[in-house]
Amino acid sequence: MLFGKACIFGGRARYCVVKPLACLFTTSSNMAKSKFEYVRNFETDDTCLRNCYIVVRLDGRNFHKFTEQHKFAKPNDNRALGLMSRSARSVMEELEDIVIAYGQSDEFSFVFKRTSTWFKRRASKLMTHVASQFSSSYVFYWKEFFGEDQPLLYPPSFDGRVVLYPSNRNLKDYLSWRQADCHVNNLYNTVFWTLVQKGGLTTAQAEERLKGTLAADKNEILFSEFNINYNTEPAVLKKGTTLIWEKLPNAEEKEVAVTRSRRRVQAHHCDVIGEQFWEEHPDILEDDNC
Amino acid sequence: MLFGKACIFGGRARYCVVKPLACLFTTSSNMAKSKFEYVRNFETDDTCLRNCYIVVRLDGRNFHKFTEQHKFAKPNDNRALGLMSRSARSVMEELEDIVIAYGQSDEFSFVFKRTSTWFKRRASKLMTHVASQFSSSYVFYWKEFFGEDQPLLYPPSFDGRVVLYPSNRNLKDYLSWRQADCHVNNLYNTVFWTLVQKGGLTTAQAEERLKGTLAADKNEILFSEFNINYNTEPAVLKKGTTLIWEKLPNAEEKEVAVTRSRRRVQAHHCDVIGEQFWEEHPDILEDDNC
Amino acid sequence: MLFGKACIFGGRARYCVVKPLACLFTTSSNMAKSKFEYVRNFETDDTCLRNCYIVVRLDGRNFHKFTEQHKFAKPNDNRALGLMSRSARSVMEELEDIVIAYGQSDEFSFVFKRTSTWFKRRASKLMTHVASQFSSSYVFYWKEFFGEDQPLLYPPSFDGRVVLYPSNRNLKDYLSWRQADCHVNNLYNTVFWTLVQKGGLTTAQAEERLKGTLAADKNEILFSEFNINYNTEPAVLKKGTTLIWEKLPNAEEKEVAVTRSRRRVQAHHCDVIGEQFWEEHPDILEDDNC
Amino acid sequence: MLFGKACIFGGRARYCVVKPLACLFTTSSNMAKSKFEYVRNFETDDTCLRNCYIVVRLDGRNFHKFTEQHKFAKPNDNRALGLMSRSARSVMEELEDIVIAYGQSDEFSFVFKRTSTWFKRRASKLMTHVASQFSSSYVFYWKEFFGEDQPLLYPPSFDGRVVLYPSNRNLKDYLSWRQADCHVNNLYNTVFWTLVQKGGLTTAQAEERLKGTLAADKNEILFSEFNINYNTEPAVLKKGTTLIWEKLPNAEEKEVAVTRSRRRVQAHHCDVIGEQFWEEHPDILEDDNC
Repeated sequence: MLFGKACIFGGRARYCVVKPLACLFTTSSNMAKSKFEYVRNFETDDTCLRNCYIVVRLDGRNFHKFTEQHKFAKPNDNRALGLMSRSARSVMEELEDIVIAYGQSDEFSFVFKRTSTWFKRRASKLMTHVASQFSSSYVFYWKEFFGEDQPLLYPPSFDGRVVLYPSNRNLKDYLSWRQADCHVNNLYNTVFWTLVQKGGLTTAQAEERLKGTLAADKNEILFSEFNINYNTEPAVLKKGTTLIWEKLPNAEEKEVAVTRSRRRVQAHHCDVIGEQFWEEHPDILEDDNC
Repeated sequence: MLFGKACIFGGRARYCVVKPLACLFTTSSNMAKSKFEYVRNFETDDTCLRNCYIVVRLDGRNFHKFTEQHKFAKPNDNRALGLMSRSARSVMEELEDIVIAYGQSDEFSFVFKRTSTWFKRRASKLMTHVASQFSSSYVFYWKEFFGEDQPLLYPPSFDGRVVLYPSNRNLKDYLSWRQADCHVNNLYNTVFWTLVQKGGLTTAQAEERLKGTLAADKNEILFSEFNINYNTEPAVLKKGTTLIWEKLPNAEEKEVAVTRSRRRVQAHHCDVIGEQFWEEHPDILEDDNC
Repeated sequence: MLFGKACIFGGRARYCVVKPLACLFTTSSNMAKSKFEYVRNFETDDTCLRNCYIVVRLDGRNFHKFTEQHKFAKPNDNRALGLMSRSARSVMEELEDIVIAYGQSDEFSFVFKRTSTWFKRRASKLMTHVASQFSSSYVFYWKEFFGEDQPLLYPPSFDGRVVLYPSNRNLKDYLSWRQADCHVNNLYNTVFWTLVQKGGLTTAQAEERLKGTLAADKNEILFSEFNINYNTEPAVLKKGTTLIWEKLPNAEEKEVAVTRSRRRVQAHHCDVIGEQFWEEHPDILEDDNC
Repeated sequence: MLFGKACIFGGRARYCVVKPLACLFTTSSNMAKSKFEYVRNFETDDTCLRNCYIVVRLDGRNFHKFTEQHKFAKPNDNRALGLMSRSARSVMEELEDIVIAYGQSDEFSFVFKRTSTWFKRRASKLMTHVASQFSSSYVFYWKEFFGEDQPLLYPPSFDGRVVLYPSNRNLKDYLSWRQADCHVNNLYNTVFWTLVQKGGLTTAQAEERLKGTLAADKNEILFSEFNINYNTEPAVLKKGTTLIWEKLPNAEEKEVAVTRSRRRVQAHHCDVIGEQFWEEHPDILEDDNC
C-alpha cells in the first residue's frame, strides 16, 4: 500500500514515503534496482496531436451474452441504459476536460476538449482511465438500477480506443455518425422484436421479413400492423444520450471560490446531427481558428 | 441493447440483428449514415511490434486518498492485497494469452506472450480491456475481502500503459525492476510505520530518522529496537505476488477434449530476480530464437 | 534491374515481369520465400492523421563544415540559396500535393495539402521521398549555380521530419515561426560578419560586442558605424523564399485537356506572417470547416 | 547559411552564431518568435523500440521508366548495380552504426545495430538520412559508372521505410527474404530476356512461355535451348550484394589511437540464407540475450 507524502519521481507524482530515499541515496538494494531500471526506456511516447479533439469510445465486450444472462428486456432495457448513463456521468465528474459524451446501446464516447493537456495528452492514460472509471462505476451503481431481483453475475468488461478529430466539422460528423447508427439500429430492433413479441414470428422469420426493407417500410409495418407510431417512441431510444456540462445558478453571487464546481452533468436525448443543438450550446466546442 | 446474431462488420464481430440490412442495402437513413462514415478513417493503427512481450501495467489512481478513506491498515493491508490479486486473476481468466502477472502495492503488470495475436495485438484494445476487467473485478469482489464493516465508498480507478520487451532478458529485467521496487518500498514502509506505531515517533520524525539510511541500517533498527527480523516478514509483502498458470492433473487421461481448460491461476510469492524461478517454470517464456 | 509491366503486389505497384509467377505458383524457391515472408508483418502503419496539413522539413546535415569546405560567401551565399530553391522546386514538380514550400539558410519546409492522399499519407514515404528528391537535385543542379570553379567535393546529406498541423492558424504560425527565425538569424549574421569583415573585429570580439543587443541595437550598429540600412538588404535574405504554384494563362481556352499542367512554381520573398500574403493567394489553404 | 559555433538548442546541436542571443535575451523580434514557437510541440516522438535491429530499406521510385530512359542493359546492368553498391557504401561510411547492408535490383536495405543510439533512434531521422545520403551519392558517383556516354538526365528518387526486428532470427529471415526475392526475380528475368534477345520471342510470347513454369523448368529452358548453365551466372546477379565492415590489419600494433578507423566496407555476393555466412562473421549480430 502507498502511504505518505507525494513526491515527483520520474516525471509523475506518486504518493509515497519511500521516494526520498530512492531519489537521493544509493544503497545496495538500490544498486540492484538501478541495474534493471533501463527497462523504463522501452516505454514509448503516445502523446495525442495538439489542437485535436480526443475521443475515447468504449464498447461492451461480449455484451450479447451478458444481456442474455442478465435478462435484459428487448429490444431496449431502460435499467441498462440508465446504468450506462450513470457510469458515463461518473467518468465526466472524475476526469478533467471532457466537454461532451454520447452513448447508445452498449457504447459510450467521451470527447476531451481540443486544448486539453490532461495527463499530457497521453493516449494510453486517457483511454485506460476512461475504461477503468466507467467499468468500476458500472459495477458500483448496478444495484441502483437493477435492484435486488437481478444481481450482477460477474464483472463485465469494456474495450476502448482513442480517435483524434482536427476540426469542429469532423467532431460533429463523428457524433452524427454514432447517432445515425443509433437510429438505424433502434428502428430495426424495434420492428424485429415487435414482429417476434407481438406478431408471433420466430427470429428467423422476422429477419427474413425485414430483409431488404427501407426505413419507410419498417415504419409502415409498425404502424399498419401494430398501430405503433415510431416517431412517438422515447427519445432516449431513438436519439441516444448526450451528456454535457450545465452551469448552475449561483445562490449567492459572492461565492466566487466555489464557482468552479458550480456546474453539473446534464443528460439530453436530442438530435445532434443538425445545427440547432450546437447553436444552443455554443460553449461546447472551441473555435477552429485556434 | 444488442440482441441477435453475430455478423462481421468492418473487421470485428458484433452481435447485432441490424447489420445484414446495414451491410447490404441503401436506405435514406443509410445514406445519411454513409455521409458521416468517413470519420472512421481517422482511427490509427496501434499494432504492437511482433515477437515482443506485451506488458500492460496498471496503477491505482489517487490511491493515497483512497487508502485513507477506506482505512487501509499500515504499512500493508492484507485485505487490499488479496483483492488486488483476486482482480488480477479475473483478468488472466477472462483475457487470452497472459502468461504471467506480477503485482505489489497498488500496481499490477500483465505479460502477454510474445507470439500472441489476441485482438490483433492492438495496444489500445489490450490495455483498455485489462484496465476495464481489473476495475470491474475490484468492485465486484470488494465485499469478499472487506466484508460488511468497510463498504466501498466510491468507484476507484486505475490507469494503464503498454510496454514492449523484445527479449527474455528484457522481460525478466522488467519483472526484476518491479520486484526490487517492492522490496525497497516495503522495507522502508515497514521501518517507517514501526517507528510511528511502536516507537511513538511522528511521521516527520520517522522520515527524519530514516534519511540516508541503507538497507542494513533499516534491518538493524527493526531488530535491535523492536526485535523484528525483517527476513521473517511474510513473503507476500517482501516479494509481491506472481500469478502463473498451473496445469491440473487429469482425473482421467482420456478426457482430451477438456484438457484445454485443465489449468488454473496459481499465486507465488517467491523471488523472480534470480534464475531459479525461471528454471522451475520453463514454459512461461518462449525462446528468443523464434 | 526492373523491367516489364506493372502489377499490384502487396498493395503497391511495382514494375516487374516476375510477379505473375510469384503471385500464382508455388515452386521450391517460392516455398523458401514464403517461409521468410512473415517478416513483412513487422512493418508498422504510420499513416498521417486525416484533415491535417503535413509538413516535411529538411535540414542540412553538418552544413557548417560543408559551407566552409565549399567556400560559401558569408553571411549569405547567393549561389547556395539559389541551389536550395532550385532543389525545392524539383521536389514540388516531382511530388504531388505540395501547396507551398518555405526555405531559408540550409532548411526547407514542404506543405502537403490537408486532404492529400498521396502515398496513402504514409509519413515514411512522404519524408523519404522529399529528402531523396531534394538531395539528388542538390547534386544534379550544383554546377548550374556554382559553375566550374567550385566543384562539389562530396555528396551532402539532409535530414527530415514530419509534423502535422490541424488548422490553418497552426500552419500559418508554423511558417511564421520559420520566417521569424530567418529574420533573427539574418540580422545577427549580417551585423556579426560586417563587424568582422568591415570592422576588423575577430569573431570572438564580434560575438562579445553583440551579446545582449536587441534588434534596434543591431540596426543602429549597421547604420551608424557602417552606413548600412538593414531595411534595404535583399528580401531573399530577410524573408527567405516561399514557393507556390502559379496558374498559367491558357493560350487557347479550348485546351481543356492540358489545363492540369498549366501551372508553374513561382518564388516569392515576401512576408508570410501578416495576412496580406494569404489574402492575395486564397487558394493555397483549404477551409478549416472541412 | 550557417556560420559560427555549435550550441545546444532544443536538444540538438546546431552550428550557429545567433543562438546565444536567441537563448538568453528577449527582444521585440524574439517576442514575435516566441508567439509562434508553440508549433514545435506538434512534433511527435518516433523513437524506435530499444534492443531491436533497425532496418531502413530504400526502393527506386519509377525506376522502370528511369532504366528505360537511361538505356540500362537487360536483364541486368552492371554499371547500375555498381552504382547502387557505391552509394550504399557511402551511406555506411557516413552514417553510424550500420552493421550490414544488402542490395539487389533497385533496392538496398541498411541494418543498424540493435543497441544503436544514433540520432536517439528517431525513425524519421534515420530513414531520411539514409535516403538523402544514398540519393546524393547516386548522382555524385553516376559518372564513375556510366562515363560520358550515358549522362544522367534528371535527379532520381528513392523512397524508404523503417522496420524493426526484435531477434537475430527475425533479422536473418528478413535478409533471407530479400535474397530469395533476388533469386526468384533474377532467374525469371534471365530466362525472359534470353527468350527475347536470343530466342527471338516478343515480350508477350516470352511471358506466355514462362507462365506456370517452376524453377527447374526455367533452368532447363536456359540449358537445353540456349546452352546456359544458370549456376555459373555471376554471383552478384544470383545473390545480390552484401556489404559488411572488414577490419584492416594494423601496420603497427602500437597505433591504438587510429584503430577505430581501421576498417572498411567490403562487398560479398554470397548466400546469407544458410548459417555459414553468419558463422564466418560472428561479429555482425549482437546476442539475443542482451
